[in-house]
Amino acid sequence: MAKTIIGVMGPGNEPEEKDLQIAYELGKLIGQRSWVLLTGGRNVGVMDAASLGASEKDGLVVGVLPDKDRSRMSLHVDIPIVTGMGSARNNINVLSSDVIIACGTGAGTLSEIMLALKAGKDVILLNQSKNALDFLQSLESDLVHEASSAYEAITMAERLL
Amino acid sequence: MAKTIIGVMGPGNEPEEKDLQIAYELGKLIGQRSWVLLTGGRNVGVMDAASLGASEKDGLVVGVLPDKDRSRMSLHVDIPIVTGMGSARNNINVLSSDVIIACGTGAGTLSEIMLALKAGKDVILLNQSKNALDFLQSLESDLVHEASSAYEAITMAERLL
Amino acid sequence: MAKTIIGVMGPGNEPEEKDLQIAYELGKLIGQRSWVLLTGGRNVGVMDAASLGASEKDGLVVGVLPDKDRSRMSLHVDIPIVTGMGSARNNINVLSSDVIIACGTGAGTLSEIMLALKAGKDVILLNQSKNALDFLQSLESDLVHEASSAYEAITMAERLL
Amino acid sequence: MAKTIIGVMGPGNEPEEKDLQIAYELGKLIGQRSWVLLTGGRNVGVMDAASLGASEKDGLVVGVLPDKDRSRMSLHVDIPIVTGMGSARNNINVLSSDVIIACGTGAGTLSEIMLALKAGKDVILLNQSKNALDFLQSLESDLVHEASSAYEAITMAERLL
Repeated sequence: MAKTIIGVMGPGNEPEEKDLQIAYELGKLIGQRSWVLLTGGRNVGVMDAASLGASEKDGLVVGVLPDKDRSRMSLHVDIPIVTGMGSARNNINVLSSDVIIACGTGAGTLSEIMLALKAGKDVILLNQSKNALDFLQSLESDLVHEASSAYEAITMAERLL
Repeated sequence: MAKTIIGVMGPGNEPEEKDLQIAYELGKLIGQRSWVLLTGGRNVGVMDAASLGASEKDGLVVGVLPDKDRSRMSLHVDIPIVTGMGSARNNINVLSSDVIIACGTGAGTLSEIMLALKAGKDVILLNQSKNALDFLQSLESDLVHEASSAYEAITMAERLL
Repeated sequence: MAKTIIGVMGPGNEPEEKDLQIAYELGKLIGQRSWVLLTGGRNVGVMDAASLGASEKDGLVVGVLPDKDRSRMSLHVDIPIVTGMGSARNNINVLSSDVIIACGTGAGTLSEIMLALKAGKDVILLNQSKNALDFLQSLESDLVHEASSAYEAITMAERLL
Repeated sequence: MAKTIIGVMGPGNEPEEKDLQIAYELGKLIGQRSWVLLTGGRNVGVMDAASLGASEKDGLVVGVLPDKDRSRMSLHVDIPIVTGMGSARNNINVLSSDVIIACGTGAGTLSEIMLALKAGKDVILLNQSKNALDFLQSLESDLVHEASSAYEAITMAERLL
């Protein structure tokens, strides 16, 4: 039977320290609940930090890689999905997740938020820049939710499932 | 030799009247210049209006369809690229365009703007909502440009090529 | 750390009874070894039979779905990867698998065998039609292997890992 | 209005001299008919030879590239579709073509033949190896056709449109 899959999306390159810390906490909380963590699979930024957190709690980590091989894969990924299709894999990330948590602001992350809304998926915003937050709130979408901590985001995800 | 390809992206469903009018003008200006117009290929909204404009000026229209067949294709598409991959085709739209013009605001369009920035492509904004514009300007990206008319957008594209 | 992933590919529609039986055995043997089974994820044919076998042995089942939702998903899939990209997902199936076992003959399955060879992946053939087998052997590829039972295929996979 | 699109598929690497010659002739015949030639877009093998032929007759050439940029593009491509998705773009090649002509034998080409049959598209075989031909004929598919020259293939395509 299909497990609960929580997608954690966020900057790979040049993440803020705070993004990484929250992502790590998200990973731990997801692992503790025996949910599956789904990320973009790479060994950098929010993807890597969330994967580390989940693996420390024996959570299962699915990494949907943009590359055609595993050379840039996070060491904490249990199940690499090797797409070889670059950023087009962002759509797979959102379609495969029951709920998406967007941790931090970046072009790739924002593309995932938008693809999620297009696909009718709930998105929980965490640690977004003020400008991104103002904009995303202005969309007045029932699918956009806002949390102020990893714990609140997970509680919110629980309710949305 | 590769022709100049201008991608015009914008809302398919529930476009504003003004989006359609500008898209139609963009299409005409692109056709007049013997550039190729690239759109999402469907028979609705900005895609359809731009395609009509270009075809009226004997411009070539490439439609990158999300569907697996041509059933929802604009009648003004000359070259349908049938992807069968839904919104993941948005990444193909931006990778294949020399310059992207985003006409109007919507989740799909915003995903394309973000994928374009991620891929290092120039994006010209036209007729964006105030909130979207404020946000996109706040990114302070050299790739983001702003135009206030179809003609200005095309002149800008000319410079960027 | 990345788990071992074995892809089992085979006809979805109109499988032979023997395909289903071997696929079910493959699933059980994969589950027993704590490997991950990867299939095309649908609730028909070889995909479904292999998934049932693996789930009976508490193996983890990843289903890489062609559809944009889970409506045609096998009930035995633990981790649905929802691609929304039709047969283009066949390439993800092969890139994500450590070894591919092709059980039975069909156009989709043969496309996966060819994509696997193109990507340099080992393929174990099981229960192929005489014509398919003759042809695949004629390729004289080091990547093509032939087994005559589920057990032999699994032993072969073990050596190839 | 959608133009007629003929897909010419064949080996990129290590093509036989005869493959290249036939591909070049196919390109010329396609260009003469004002059909659009669609290929995998790269600057090698059958793709390149067919593109050269079509461009010599002022035919329009669409190249659906596997890469994320144009660095390996044939110089004879007019409209590059940049997919960045590797061999997964093979499915776009077949879905976008009205008829597919497979010129020469190779793993990539065979994956395209199989994806075409899966999608219900007509495929004309040219210059296939004896083994490939025997196998493809054994499928007894109404979609599989066999030609012995570029001219015959084009005449056949004309009938199938």
